[in-house]
Amino acid sequence: MAPGVLIAGGDQVAIPLAMLIVFGSAKLLAEVFERMNQPGIVGEIVAGILVGPSVLAWVSPDEFLNALAQLGVMFLLFRVGLEVKASELIRVGGTATLVAVLGVVVPFFLGWGILLLWGEPQVEAIFTGAAMVATSVGITAQVLESKGLMKARASRTILAAAVIDDVLGLLVLAMVSNMAKGEINLLGLGLTAAMAIGFTLLVLTWGTRTVHKLAPRVQKQLRLGEAQFALSMILLFGLAVAAVYAGVAAIIGAFLAGMALSESTGQRVRDLAHGVTELLVPFFLAGIGLNLDLSALANRATLVLSLIILAAAIVSKLVGCGLGALPLGRADALRVGIGMMPRGEVGLVVAQLGLSLGVITQAIYGVVVFMAVATTLIAPPLLTLAYRKLIDADAKAEVFRIG
Amino acid sequence: MAPGVLIAGGDQVAIPLAMLIVFGSAKLLAEVFERMNQPGIVGEIVAGILVGPSVLAWVSPDEFLNALAQLGVMFLLFRVGLEVKASELIRVGGTATLVAVLGVVVPFFLGWGILLLWGEPQVEAIFTGAAMVATSVGITAQVLESKGLMKARASRTILAAAVIDDVLGLLVLAMVSNMAKGEINLLGLGLTAAMAIGFTLLVLTWGTRTVHKLAPRVQKQLRLGEAQFALSMILLFGLAVAAVYAGVAAIIGAFLAGMALSESTGQRVRDLAHGVTELLVPFFLAGIGLNLDLSALANRATLVLSLIILAAAIVSKLVGCGLGALPLGRADALRVGIGMMPRGEVGLVVAQLGLSLGVITQAIYGVVVFMAVATTLIAPPLLTLAYRKLIDADAKAEVFRIG
Repeated sequence: MAPGVLIAGGDQVAIPLAMLIVFGSAKLLAEVFERMNQPGIVGEIVAGILVGPSVLAWVSPDEFLNALAQLGVMFLLFRVGLEVKASELIRVGGTATLVAVLGVVVPFFLGWGILLLWGEPQVEAIFTGAAMVATSVGITAQVLESKGLMKARASRTILAAAVIDDVLGLLVLAMVSNMAKGEINLLGLGLTAAMAIGFTLLVLTWGTRTVHKLAPRVQKQLRLGEAQFALSMILLFGLAVAAVYAGVAAIIGAFLAGMALSESTGQRVRDLAHGVTELLVPFFLAGIGLNLDLSALANRATLVLSLIILAAAIVSKLVGCGLGALPLGRADALRVGIGMMPRGEVGLVVAQLGLSLGVITQAIYGVVVFMAVATTLIAPPLLTLAYRKLIDADAKAEVFRIG
Repeated sequence: MAPGVLIAGGDQVAIPLAMLIVFGSAKLLAEVFERMNQPGIVGEIVAGILVGPSVLAWVSPDEFLNALAQLGVMFLLFRVGLEVKASELIRVGGTATLVAVLGVVVPFFLGWGILLLWGEPQVEAIFTGAAMVATSVGITAQVLESKGLMKARASRTILAAAVIDDVLGLLVLAMVSNMAKGEINLLGLGLTAAMAIGFTLLVLTWGTRTVHKLAPRVQKQLRLGEAQFALSMILLFGLAVAAVYAGVAAIIGAFLAGMALSESTGQRVRDLAHGVTELLVPFFLAGIGLNLDLSALANRATLVLSLIILAAAIVSKLVGCGLGALPLGRADALRVGIGMMPRGEVGLVVAQLGLSLGVITQAIYGVVVFMAVATTLIAPPLLTLAYRKLIDADAKAEVFRIG
């Protein structure tokens, strides 16, 4: 080792180097995909696959990168929340509930049935079903937001359904892991459900009004520089922590924090938070790719099962969520079905949990991870197609405005 | 464990919780300090001491928090670089060189002499001297920037001197660690020096011009959203990595990246980068406090030595750097002397290196860390005092502008 490297501290390079590789490759491939008229977001996931252990092995998903990915998706949902008013979400609540419930029931039983037919044991079948339940709304939100489609009715429905889906997914997973450990605790499950639902509703209704009333008053009192931004960050992290303790995902807390601030937050805070999001989201996207291990699919039987499960994952959300959203008309039903498709990091969490509980094999783990990543890769281009009419209408409106 | 906690993933809470505690406490104490007319920055360091292992032990400086701290100081120096033109830095180069050289020589020999008089072995004395050499410019930069004093001549001189100081500190440390390992490699030292100086000068002159010419052209070609921000981030991480390989600190690379972009970067990128900086700098500041272990000072002899070394650290930079800056007049000389005082994270790195090489005892480690943190705590209020005239003048100008 050169003395210079020693002095500068051998690991001083680790952080900026990992940032450079992940962020740089994500942005490079986003650019390449945009030029091929594909969503840049898919390019960023592919970048993760390329620089990750599967192909180039330049970086591996370590603690630091996973933490940045977690922060990235939290900021993404926070930003999405900033664009949403609680009242708008509550308005689509009925349809969204139907979307969420059918979007949980159909994938679960389809996944469970397929694995039983394939000859896998009961526990593994149930776990795979559970992994097919959870929707990762981050990807969809990113696509819709980047195209300015967050205000569309279908988009609102997807968001509301994703929040309900998270609570349901949590219950399914709680049941499944209790089953895996051979102890079913109905009281515990009921409490979990009540806490998760109570927390979400409480923040959704009372929290938003309180923040709207208090925030401007508190900000005026503070001498701190960028006080509004600091308060927003504290609310973001605070609600993320509270959400986890209440039993829902941290990103739901982040989303609720954004929503609670949506009416009282000025452009300044939005710009500052936007900077953090722009920096961190690539770590979330590339992180999904980093976690894919292509070698798990080298076995032919596993590969076939993977493709079947992938097809089932696509069809089940399309049919389940689509049916739920049919009252909105067929075009919107299609959008909702596709928007609920990505399993992303939520699927990865379920797979890792199953592996750590010792109830699924390495092969099934590979199948589930493949399903989670592939549904995430497929959704953005499909979503762009399904929303094309709205995008074109927007573009025309734009032309009229300019002209 | 409640099923909810299990499902949500037990460690899903770790990241937002650490963010909440460190960021929240830093901002809370910054507010408290501002209300006591003390610099908020000192409050943020104190927050780190409070929530860290020394007092409340709510968090400990783990890999994740240290990584955020590293990123934080990189973004801080990047932002400072954005405010500085290379030509302005080169203009004060002569004085800055004198400031840096005297600011290295005086502290080194003073620290070395004191430890010999105290009866410590030669190696330990040399290492303590080396730890007193390096200036941590992050703190000073933060104070000056938050008060809008970056344009003052003394501020420019401090920045330029800090860059040179970093190269010199690197050489001192290379020599010292070679000595500790009993092998002195003059050729290696020469190469290290040449690379570090060459890299800095190359980026300072040729790099800035190239970026200024190329950046607008490249940005026009890109289809990526927020392309200018993405390119800036890639340059930031790229130069940070290159700096470490060339033998200087990552933050010097970040500073040079900011400077290279200073003339071609618009307000949008500044705002986005500002958001990241606002989020991450508290982790750098509180991180300094987190690393302080007050129990190391429980021993009375160690406490006395700590106070002597602290006094020596203050006086030696004040005299050394102040003498070097005397051509600028006494007021500016005082500002420069105080601005170069904080040892911050650089001192911590040296102390850790000494400990890992096994050449300093745990007691001396505690002494050095105390010196590094205490000089960092003392500098901001002194700096505010020393710059008072300029701040008042600014405030008057402001009044005139408004009136």
